[in-house]
Amino acid sequence: MKRKSLETTNCPIARSLDNVGEWWSLLIIRDAFHGLRRFDEFQKSLSIAPNMLTRRLNSLLENGLMEKHQYSERPARFEYLLTAKGRDLAPVLTALFSWGNKHLCPDGISIQFEDIKTGQVVEPILVDKQTGKEISSRHHRLIPGPAADQAMKDRIKHIQQTHQSASLLKESSS
Amino acid sequence: MKRKSLETTNCPIARSLDNVGEWWSLLIIRDAFHGLRRFDEFQKSLSIAPNMLTRRLNSLLENGLMEKHQYSERPARFEYLLTAKGRDLAPVLTALFSWGNKHLCPDGISIQFEDIKTGQVVEPILVDKQTGKEISSRHHRLIPGPAADQAMKDRIKHIQQTHQSASLLKESSS
Repeated sequence: MKRKSLETTNCPIARSLDNVGEWWSLLIIRDAFHGLRRFDEFQKSLSIAPNMLTRRLNSLLENGLMEKHQYSERPARFEYLLTAKGRDLAPVLTALFSWGNKHLCPDGISIQFEDIKTGQVVEPILVDKQTGKEISSRHHRLIPGPAADQAMKDRIKHIQQTHQSASLLKESSS
Repeated sequence: MKRKSLETTNCPIARSLDNVGEWWSLLIIRDAFHGLRRFDEFQKSLSIAPNMLTRRLNSLLENGLMEKHQYSERPARFEYLLTAKGRDLAPVLTALFSWGNKHLCPDGISIQFEDIKTGQVVEPILVDKQTGKEISSRHHRLIPGPAADQAMKDRIKHIQQTHQSASLLKESSS
């Protein structure tokens, strides 16, 4: 049986992974959100070799996630700031944060978000901005966008068929 | 000036990155969400060498993100399914998806979520489940959890001081 390729070169997740670079670079982004700016601050926080930190910072600069800003003339000193594109990664970090707190903290939670006004601990969920409905396959589905190529259309068709047969299976077994 | 270390061994983001393994493994998780189950399906979708796919699948199995399930006795055939822990990565993938669509698709969007009922395109945002308020530093802040060690408490103190001085700077310059 010949099957169509499910390869997709224009998947936004694949592009994101590629653009952020190494996983590990997200910890630099995290530190920048936490107010760290200088090379030595990142180095101290992350305990890595300077040449490795330089390489990763350069990759973040090249991809437009951070920008280098001179804050002192003599001696010449630089700081690294998040760009708007870098700041837009906040939901990715928060989602990883929640997942880690839920699944990887057998000895208890070390850091959490609170509502400044009420002091209540926050439980972040992803919703549609318009309707407030939580993103889920009950309410939402993937569809091709205006720039979808044939491979992407094939994949989305495959997803819809699989999900349909999965829900049929569920119904027939219950 | 002596500064306290900002190192944190119990950061849930660092733990998450560590547990997922290589960045690239998220594409296997993505494929599993899309209904792919068999080794050859993943291989076709991801175009990688079998030994590399085996290594990455094994790491996902070891860390409890997927499970291996035998669906045929003769010949012995296996499929790879997401566990509850693996499925809980959906918000991480969706956040990466949105970020990619916003910043990395200069030629237009190839894939998007629609509301099944209304057909409206979805814009995912992270909110607090209780209040519905979007997660942001205006409404929320990081605080130590019950299991925070001293390093984590120091870091959170540093974050709060930095954010306070940043907002003070903003006020005085406006």
